[in-house]
Amino acid sequence: MKISIERGTLLKAVGQAQSVVERRNTIPILANVLIEAEGNQVSFRATDLDIEVVDRAPAMVERAGATTVSAVMLHEIVRKLPDGSLITLSEDSAAGRLTVAAGRSTFNLATLPKEDFPVMASSEYSTNFAAPAPVLRRLFDKAKFAISTEETRYYLNGVYMHVATGEDGPVLRCVATDGHRLARIDAPLPEGAQGMAGVIVPRKTVNELRKLLDDDEAQIAVSVSETKVRFATPLITMTSKVIDGTFPDYTRVIPTGNTRRLEVDASDFAKAVDRVATVSSERSRAVKLSLDEDRLILSVNAPDSGAAEEELAVAYGDERLEIGFNAKYLLEIASQVDRENAVFLFNSAGDPTLMREGNDMSAVYVVMPMRV
Amino acid sequence: MKISIERGTLLKAVGQAQSVVERRNTIPILANVLIEAEGNQVSFRATDLDIEVVDRAPAMVERAGATTVSAVMLHEIVRKLPDGSLITLSEDSAAGRLTVAAGRSTFNLATLPKEDFPVMASSEYSTNFAAPAPVLRRLFDKAKFAISTEETRYYLNGVYMHVATGEDGPVLRCVATDGHRLARIDAPLPEGAQGMAGVIVPRKTVNELRKLLDDDEAQIAVSVSETKVRFATPLITMTSKVIDGTFPDYTRVIPTGNTRRLEVDASDFAKAVDRVATVSSERSRAVKLSLDEDRLILSVNAPDSGAAEEELAVAYGDERLEIGFNAKYLLEIASQVDRENAVFLFNSAGDPTLMREGNDMSAVYVVMPMRV
Repeated sequence: MKISIERGTLLKAVGQAQSVVERRNTIPILANVLIEAEGNQVSFRATDLDIEVVDRAPAMVERAGATTVSAVMLHEIVRKLPDGSLITLSEDSAAGRLTVAAGRSTFNLATLPKEDFPVMASSEYSTNFAAPAPVLRRLFDKAKFAISTEETRYYLNGVYMHVATGEDGPVLRCVATDGHRLARIDAPLPEGAQGMAGVIVPRKTVNELRKLLDDDEAQIAVSVSETKVRFATPLITMTSKVIDGTFPDYTRVIPTGNTRRLEVDASDFAKAVDRVATVSSERSRAVKLSLDEDRLILSVNAPDSGAAEEELAVAYGDERLEIGFNAKYLLEIASQVDRENAVFLFNSAGDPTLMREGNDMSAVYVVMPMRV
Repeated sequence: MKISIERGTLLKAVGQAQSVVERRNTIPILANVLIEAEGNQVSFRATDLDIEVVDRAPAMVERAGATTVSAVMLHEIVRKLPDGSLITLSEDSAAGRLTVAAGRSTFNLATLPKEDFPVMASSEYSTNFAAPAPVLRRLFDKAKFAISTEETRYYLNGVYMHVATGEDGPVLRCVATDGHRLARIDAPLPEGAQGMAGVIVPRKTVNELRKLLDDDEAQIAVSVSETKVRFATPLITMTSKVIDGTFPDYTRVIPTGNTRRLEVDASDFAKAVDRVATVSSERSRAVKLSLDEDRLILSVNAPDSGAAEEELAVAYGDERLEIGFNAKYLLEIASQVDRENAVFLFNSAGDPTLMREGNDMSAVYVVMPMRV
C-alpha cells in the first residue's frame, strides 16, 4: 500500500475512526485502525467489537493494499503535522512497518496483519430509511441525559428507538429512562421506517453517532436489524450492536391526569435551581418547590451548611402545592428546553411530574419527586 | 456585621481568597473565609496554615463585625448570582448564620466563630522592596517548571529567590531545579533588596502568587524574613511560610565551558520534538539529537511501536555530535523561549547542556542528557 493524502482530510477520517477505540485494550489489534486503499479512496476502520466505524476519504492511491497501525498514534502524528501538509503512507510489509512521511518528518509505525482485524459480520437489515441529521440529532440529544448508568439494568443503558403512535399519527420515537426520570422525543415517521422493530441503541453508540449528525444538510441512512443498527453518510458508516434486552413499557410511567400547570421561564428556573442547590454539598440534593398563585419559591435546607430560598414570578393558578425534586434532575430537564418557557404538570407531591415545552407534545419529560 | 457590596467586587475578592483553601480539610475552620467589615471596607482572609491571603474590597458597612463561612460555598453563590447584583451580607450571631441576599435570592450559611480562625502570626521582615509585577512574573514563570515534585528533597519543592552577582552586577535571582534540569532567571536588583536572605518560595505559593502579578501596571511590595515572605498590592496581601531548608549550591551545575553552539528556531524545534516523541508511549521518552554542519536530526526509537525522524535546518558549525534528552524536558525548556531563537551549548553526550535565548544571560537553563 502506498497513498498520498492531504493532512486535513486524513485528520478528519482518522479522528472519527479512532474515537471508538477503547483506550485500555487487552487485545492489541483493537487498538489499531485498519487502513484499506483501493481505486482513489482510502478507508479507516476501527472497532471495539460492539461498534464499528468506517471512514472513507479521497486519496491518491499509488499502490493498493491494506494494513493496521495504532489508531491513537496515527491520529496524534497527523494532528501534530503542519496544516496543509501532503502526507504519504507507505507499507513495507516485509518489515511489518508503515511509513508516514510529510516534509522532513518520517515515522515508522509497527503494524499488525490486516487478517487479524475483526471486521464486523454484516447483517440483514429489515428496515432502511433516511432522516435529516437535525431530526436524529434532536431525537438522541434530548433523550440521552436520561440514560441509566446502572449496569444491572442493562436494558436501560441506551436510547430505545422505535415506531409509536403520537398525537398526530405514527412517529419515530426515542425514549430513555433511569427509573428516576424519563425523556420521550418524537419526530415524524420517515418513509420506510414503518414496521421497524424497536432497538435499544447503547450509550456509547449514541455519543459516537453525535459526530455524524453535526452537518445540518446531511441525510443519514439508517438501517435496523434485530441485532444491529447502522447509520451512514456518504463517507462514514457506523454499525453498532443493539442492547439485547426488552425495554420496559414506559407508557405506564407517563402521567396523563396531571392538571396543576406551572409555566416558567426555563432559563431563569434553571439558574435559580442551580443557585439554591449550592448550599448543599450532598450528591442528591433535594430542592423544594412551593407553589402558590403566580409565585414559586425554590428552597433547599441543609442543616449542616445552611439554607437557601429564591422566589420566581410564574404562571400558576391552582391550589398550593409543595413538592421536592433532585436538583440535578431538575437542572437537566430544564436545560432541554429550547424555547422560552417550560410547562410543568403536577398531580400531588408523591406523583411523577411531567414537563414539556409549551403545549408541544413531541418532547415530554417525566421526573419522580423526592420527599422533602 | 452587615454590609452591601457589588457582586463583581465581591466575586473577585472572595475568588482570590478561596483559592488557597484546601478542598479536603480535616480542620473545619480552614474551609472557611474570615470576613471582617469595618469603616468602608471588608476583608476576606483565607489560609491553609502555610499561606494566608487577605483580600480587601470597598463596601457599604452598615454594621461592623466579623464572622467566618465556607469559602467555597460563598464563592459559588456569588458566582451564580446575576452580574450587577447588589449583595447584602448580614450576620445573625445568635443563630450562628450569615445571610447572603440579592434580589429575590436568600441564603443562610452556617458560620464558625471568628475567634477560632487561625490568623497567621506577624513576622519581623528584615528586607522590604518593591518590584513591578511583570518583573516578578518573569522571574517565577520561567523558573517554576523546573520545581521538583520529590517530597524527599523538600528543599527543591520551590523557587529559590535570592540576591546574586550576575554578568553586570547584583541581581534578584530565581532558581529552580529537580536535579534533571535547572532554570536560573535574573532581574535587576530592586532598591532595598540588598542583603536579603535567600528564601525558598513553595510551589503552591508560586502558583497563588501568579494571580497578583497579572496587572502590568501593579507594583508589588515584597517583604522577606527568615521564615516568611509577603507579597502585597494595595488590595491583596499574601503571606507564606518559606521552605525551611538549604537550597543546594546550584552554581556548580551550570556548565561554563560548553562551546558547541546550536541555534534553532524555538517553536519549530518544540513542534518537531513533540512530533517525534509521539511514537513512544513511555513516560520518559528519549529524543536523540544528531548534529552535523547546519543540520539537526531529531529521532526517537521505540522498538515496540515504531520510530520517528525529523530534520531541521539549524546553525551549527562544530563537529558531529549525538546526544539524547527526555522529550518532556526539551519541550518545557524550548517553550520558555519568548524570542525566536534558542541557543544550545553542548559539551559532550554525557555532560549537562545549557540553553538560553540568544546571548541573553538573564535566563539560563540546564538540562541533563539521557543515554540513547
